[in-house]
Amino acid sequence: MTPPPLRLGIAGLGRGFMLLLPTLAAHPGIRLVAAADPREEARRQFASDFDAVTYADVAELCANPDVEAVYVATPHQFHREHVELAAAHGKHVLVEKPMALSLEDCRAMIAAMRQAGRWLMVGHSHSFDTPYLRTRELIDSGEFGAVRMIHALNFTDFLYRPRRPEELDTSRGGGVVFSQAAHQVDIVRLLGGGRASSVRAITGSWDAARPTEGAYGALLSFEGGPFATMTYSGFAHFDSDEFCGWSGELGQPRDPSQYGHARRRLAQVQTPEEEAALKNTRTYGAGLSLANSRLEEITHNHFGFVVVACDHADLRPSPQGVQVYADTRRYLEALAPPTIPRREVLDELIDAVRHGRAPIHSGEWGLATMEVCLGMLESAATRRDVVLSQQVGLPHRAALR
Amino acid sequence: MTPPPLRLGIAGLGRGFMLLLPTLAAHPGIRLVAAADPREEARRQFASDFDAVTYADVAELCANPDVEAVYVATPHQFHREHVELAAAHGKHVLVEKPMALSLEDCRAMIAAMRQAGRWLMVGHSHSFDTPYLRTRELIDSGEFGAVRMIHALNFTDFLYRPRRPEELDTSRGGGVVFSQAAHQVDIVRLLGGGRASSVRAITGSWDAARPTEGAYGALLSFEGGPFATMTYSGFAHFDSDEFCGWSGELGQPRDPSQYGHARRRLAQVQTPEEEAALKNTRTYGAGLSLANSRLEEITHNHFGFVVVACDHADLRPSPQGVQVYADTRRYLEALAPPTIPRREVLDELIDAVRHGRAPIHSGEWGLATMEVCLGMLESAATRRDVVLSQQVGLPHRAALR
Ligand SMILES: NC(=O)c1ccc[n+]([C@@H]2O[C@H](COP(=O)([O-])OP(=O)(O)OC[C@H]3O[C@@H](n4cnc5c(N)ncnc54)[C@H](O)[C@@H]3O)[C@@H](O)[C@H]2O)c1
Ligand SMILES: NC(=O)c1ccc[n+]([C@@H]2O[C@H](COP(=O)([O-])OP(=O)(O)OC[C@H]3O[C@@H](n4cnc5c(N)ncnc54)[C@H](O)[C@@H]3O)[C@@H](O)[C@H]2O)c1
Repeated sequence: MTPPPLRLGIAGLGRGFMLLLPTLAAHPGIRLVAAADPREEARRQFASDFDAVTYADVAELCANPDVEAVYVATPHQFHREHVELAAAHGKHVLVEKPMALSLEDCRAMIAAMRQAGRWLMVGHSHSFDTPYLRTRELIDSGEFGAVRMIHALNFTDFLYRPRRPEELDTSRGGGVVFSQAAHQVDIVRLLGGGRASSVRAITGSWDAARPTEGAYGALLSFEGGPFATMTYSGFAHFDSDEFCGWSGELGQPRDPSQYGHARRRLAQVQTPEEEAALKNTRTYGAGLSLANSRLEEITHNHFGFVVVACDHADLRPSPQGVQVYADTRRYLEALAPPTIPRREVLDELIDAVRHGRAPIHSGEWGLATMEVCLGMLESAATRRDVVLSQQVGLPHRAALR
Repeated sequence: MTPPPLRLGIAGLGRGFMLLLPTLAAHPGIRLVAAADPREEARRQFASDFDAVTYADVAELCANPDVEAVYVATPHQFHREHVELAAAHGKHVLVEKPMALSLEDCRAMIAAMRQAGRWLMVGHSHSFDTPYLRTRELIDSGEFGAVRMIHALNFTDFLYRPRRPEELDTSRGGGVVFSQAAHQVDIVRLLGGGRASSVRAITGSWDAARPTEGAYGALLSFEGGPFATMTYSGFAHFDSDEFCGWSGELGQPRDPSQYGHARRRLAQVQTPEEEAALKNTRTYGAGLSLANSRLEEITHNHFGFVVVACDHADLRPSPQGVQVYADTRRYLEALAPPTIPRREVLDELIDAVRHGRAPIHSGEWGLATMEVCLGMLESAATRRDVVLSQQVGLPHRAALR
């Protein structure tokens, strides 16, 4: 009685798509039936990798009756428009993080999908990673008492990877608050129960050549008392993968001897055009295809060092499982290594579409995370706490698979 | 032309004294000539360990003309009174952190010492540790550009070590903001240049049996733009010494298999009296003496994980030196292991008294750190930023030894 695979169309065949490609290709519950991208080489590659139709335009993709659901992986600024197109054609939607660039856009997306009577999910975000979900289950078990404090730390070279111009312009969704806090806040909200009450943040824009937020520190309060500290540097030289057993964000083994790679590579480009071109040498259809998308993944994905202080244990999600530091003993709650990386995203989508099971990462959930991210930018500008009013908790779900 | 040793008197022969005892005993520039403590067994031990006079009362110690300088290591609430006594008798003073419990007390101490024309220093604090001082020198070299962000993280079992009742009562100076932020803020101020401008903090009091702050998260802004995130848990199960190569706060090798030791030991006591008695089994004169004070110290002291993000490097002080993560390479700026642990404190004191060299850790410096700590408590209560107005920078000093 396995339901038929979900017939998925892809909007945007760039890096976000590329990172989910191994999952999309391997997941038995998914069939890729169509894609849209203005880049012809990407369309050609998709048509050759899959038995699928392609379009230059997302509207045409959405009009295809064979498409049941659309994965919107276009640049941030198109998320609202593309979700509304999908809704207008009665498709379910998985939209990449950050959900959109304003709460108004998020609200419009939610309204359109509700009107269409279709499921809306926001992701991939690292809060889908099994170690964080398993940590949430350990919290829910009650064995360790209440969550009191969460600390999340991530030091990466995010700002020195090749970027499109708008990725370096905050007004167009650039910078680490839109692109990286969207992960970190999502994780912290998952672990803190979802309902944040206020945020205070300071952001850092230190490189005149890349004039957007590259770092931040934030204090996030939750209803009922827990709080979180978040520290992110995308300017980093120190690499916090060291605290994750040298497993990378994608679960790949990291080689510490590749020190300084991102800055060295970037030093070779002179103009924004050259930089965008450099980004494109690693893009689907231009150098990359299904054949070389597969990661030799040996551990779970992660988003840096995270620790949850509960009354009777500190819980530390790790690429191998959850390290439990309890009152009297310490042990690894081990997790089997992933066979299909990031499958949690598609599992949640299929659970919703095929089994009517409410996702954690709903539109309302995504909007609440965006409220925190936008609140961080506002707090950094106004130098005061920003009160949050659009927060949602976690749906009641049975134990995760 | 070595100047004669500084003739030091000790006020308070407890744990603070015990931690500095190996230094006091080994430092060639120090002679211990007197001590005061109401505990007779401590006085007896001191008289037998040193060729020195002892008193039950700090006033008598201060009246001794043979004493040049007093190390005030009595409980926080006595710091002001004992510093004023020393000032009245024309002694130089090294007073333990936290300097006092209010800015008013700090101001009175500074005024009394200024009136007496004697040096006032506040410490030991971990900002004296050579790796932090060396990091400051690397910053001052200009090689790595401006300081942009500092992150400091410490997870310890501070709240579960045996305590006197007032150590668990914030109104009497209890909790980790007075006792531990005094270290962390001091380090962060040293690295950030001293002049903080505002602080936002949240504190955690999670254990009804130990009703004081045991944890905090804080955002500290500095003049000119740098900021710091600080996270501290004294309720911790996870131990951040893991990020310091399993070197302990005192530079001692840590044994990770001793997991849960503090909670296990504390579980054996029933009453505050039993707990104070437990603390006293590890006190000078009651179980401890000069003979067993010496640490098999192999690395420098530290106060958890600290990283300073500069334009062209992240600097990570460590028990072995300073790990420099620069744009193109990464290396350890190694430091010789300490021969006399914590000697930096007495070096700075002797430099002031004997050579007229202004200390970093002056009364004004200590007051500024207390302003931040008190600001953290206020911010946690009022849920808003607290503006700081009593901050001081670093004195101009030649390179450190
Ligand atoms: N969850 C993650 O780990 C992750 C990682 C990377 C990117 N993302 C997200 O994916 C989204 C895309 O970012 P990216 O890094 O893949 O960018 P990218 O530049 O690599 O790819 C964007 C793709 O969209 C295509 N595109 C542009 N305009 C389009 C339009 N109007 N219609 C259809 N396609 C269009 C481009 O040709 C390109 O192929 C962003 O929202 C980003 O946050 C998520
Ligand atoms: N820098 C560090 O690493 C460090 C570590 C521990 C303590 N300290 C500081 O040292 C100070 C003392 O704390 P502690 O942990 O040693 O406490 P403690 O209880 O171990 O010792 C206090 C000592 O002072 C004595 N005392 C009490 N009242 C006195 C009085 N009126 N006159 C003279 N002596 C008196 C007590 O008998 C005891 O011997 C505190 O301010 C604390 O913050 C600093």
